[in-house]
Amino acid sequence: MTEVHVAPPHDHPVFIGADLPPAEARGPVVIIYDPKVGYLAEKLRSTAEPLLYEAVAGGEGAKSLSVYEDLLRRLARRGVPRDAEVWAVGGGTITDLAGFVAASYLRGVAWRAWPTTTLAMVDAAVGGKTGVNLPEGKNLVGAFHPPRSVSADLQTLRTLPDGRFREGLVEAFKHGLISGDERLLAPWGLSAGAPQLEAYVARAVAVKAAVVARDYRESGERMKLNLGHTLAHALEAVSNHQLSHGHAVAYGLLYAALLGRRRGGADLTGPVLELLEWTAAPPPPAASWEELAVYTGRDKKNRAEKLIWVIPYAAGDLRLETPTAEELRATYEEWRGMLSRRLR
Amino acid sequence: MTEVHVAPPHDHPVFIGADLPPAEARGPVVIIYDPKVGYLAEKLRSTAEPLLYEAVAGGEGAKSLSVYEDLLRRLARRGVPRDAEVWAVGGGTITDLAGFVAASYLRGVAWRAWPTTTLAMVDAAVGGKTGVNLPEGKNLVGAFHPPRSVSADLQTLRTLPDGRFREGLVEAFKHGLISGDERLLAPWGLSAGAPQLEAYVARAVAVKAAVVARDYRESGERMKLNLGHTLAHALEAVSNHQLSHGHAVAYGLLYAALLGRRRGGADLTGPVLELLEWTAAPPPPAASWEELAVYTGRDKKNRAEKLIWVIPYAAGDLRLETPTAEELRATYEEWRGMLSRRLR
Repeated sequence: MTEVHVAPPHDHPVFIGADLPPAEARGPVVIIYDPKVGYLAEKLRSTAEPLLYEAVAGGEGAKSLSVYEDLLRRLARRGVPRDAEVWAVGGGTITDLAGFVAASYLRGVAWRAWPTTTLAMVDAAVGGKTGVNLPEGKNLVGAFHPPRSVSADLQTLRTLPDGRFREGLVEAFKHGLISGDERLLAPWGLSAGAPQLEAYVARAVAVKAAVVARDYRESGERMKLNLGHTLAHALEAVSNHQLSHGHAVAYGLLYAALLGRRRGGADLTGPVLELLEWTAAPPPPAASWEELAVYTGRDKKNRAEKLIWVIPYAAGDLRLETPTAEELRATYEEWRGMLSRRLR
Repeated sequence: MTEVHVAPPHDHPVFIGADLPPAEARGPVVIIYDPKVGYLAEKLRSTAEPLLYEAVAGGEGAKSLSVYEDLLRRLARRGVPRDAEVWAVGGGTITDLAGFVAASYLRGVAWRAWPTTTLAMVDAAVGGKTGVNLPEGKNLVGAFHPPRSVSADLQTLRTLPDGRFREGLVEAFKHGLISGDERLLAPWGLSAGAPQLEAYVARAVAVKAAVVARDYRESGERMKLNLGHTLAHALEAVSNHQLSHGHAVAYGLLYAALLGRRRGGADLTGPVLELLEWTAAPPPPAASWEELAVYTGRDKKNRAEKLIWVIPYAAGDLRLETPTAEELRATYEEWRGMLSRRLR
């Protein structure tokens, strides 16, 4: 087992390993779990004897205000007290949802996360972001509410489809570009049972932990985590969310790499193209720059009018800059050209 | 104008006076207002030029997840950015609702409160508590999210019915019992136009500000603000919320005063009976102790099983104690006897 500590104000451990021990609750427990990983939930149930044990099917549908309201009312009817802990067992949609329930029930109770996908382990469950979607957009409602602990049990990944296993590591790859840790840029040998997985996940978590500890509320430093995401969100939107988040981010990383190269940075396109290959990304939606630009402007990470992009000049050298409209469009054409050559 | 500062982590001013100047927004503005005080909202609108200007009728009905969701979606559709400020103009139900919208939209934007009732000025708008109700109970969902400023414009009280004006000051009277400031225990001469009102409200705000600054999240000190509220919530519940909050708290203060006297404290019943008179409290619901006790146990302020009561031994000397069931019942009989003599 490896332990990574997220520094204050988060101040909680992240445990990574196979077959982790259950946490010691400091009060009554509520378990909210994805039935896909019911065997882990059952294991936790037997030790924690929860006041409530609620199944919620993972997926974006879980992150709605109606599921949120339903859970809050169940907690209220059960008389769940203020010193209770909410345990979230599932992928990022379950940890985001259950974390926001914990953040707002009685104006805030404690919670713990058991992320069960690579994406949730290296990204969603670390950093304190919780929330749900609105019909108008993803993650538009929520709270910063760090968990008391995160337990990434690698056993759960054995039931995760290979495609989702790899896709989730796109964010770990991104953490390699942020930190300059080259080992994160080569996930190629990894699979659910691989012995080197624990060290890889721990390294990826450590990068995110360092960034969010330096910047709790996303004022500057934390924007680096947005690398690849401005274009990714636009691609997801124009594809009507047919393109998965992991693949969209991988495409966004390629676009960011091209922006960096154009501005005089190193050429990072090689490993990103390999990442697209390894994750078997389907072709991106055939959208014009004009269609995409509508959505890049709506990205909630961008304040007011000024569109800031996170641009990698090298692994470990990210800069926050505002390219011209002309530059963005030209880079998009370059990106399309590179991808159409790849598909041929 | 009087300014009271609420210390960090709240760290914001409370302005009290007639015809206050509008705030200087640090970003685009959203105004959520009760049409009952539309004239103040219009005044603010003309200087702030808000992105959104939304009327919500005040009252407990405003504090629902459906009104909350509707507002969030309006903000999202308008593309309200992260650096926006939500301005809440109305009574405590509007400031609680709009404050929670601000606390959770994009995981938190800034807000300012323009409380327009005595209750909201001396209590609801100060302390950072925001939230809405569930069908299962009041204030079961929300967040601690202090506003950037509070502007208590005494002009708005001129349109407040006399009964509500006086009822709101029950909480100010309670602040007198908490702090020992005897001047707060004699609101009898006050009315909307009274020249001494500004000083009285400022004193009441200062008490609450001092308590919430010492205890941000209600771990100990802040429980003193719960004086009178355990019985009050039970009375409200058994009356099906026919009994108003102010009157219920006044009755709860009488009960707490009797508990204090029984345990060897000073006799504080005199001014509390006068308060019931001054606020023209209707007779309390005719409930047995057994009926009420169901609800006192559900009070969300109480952790787990142990029922802690806030008991005044003198103005300025409050203690957190757990009386026996026998004592609570006997005090209730004493309370009923005293009130039936008063009604004769």
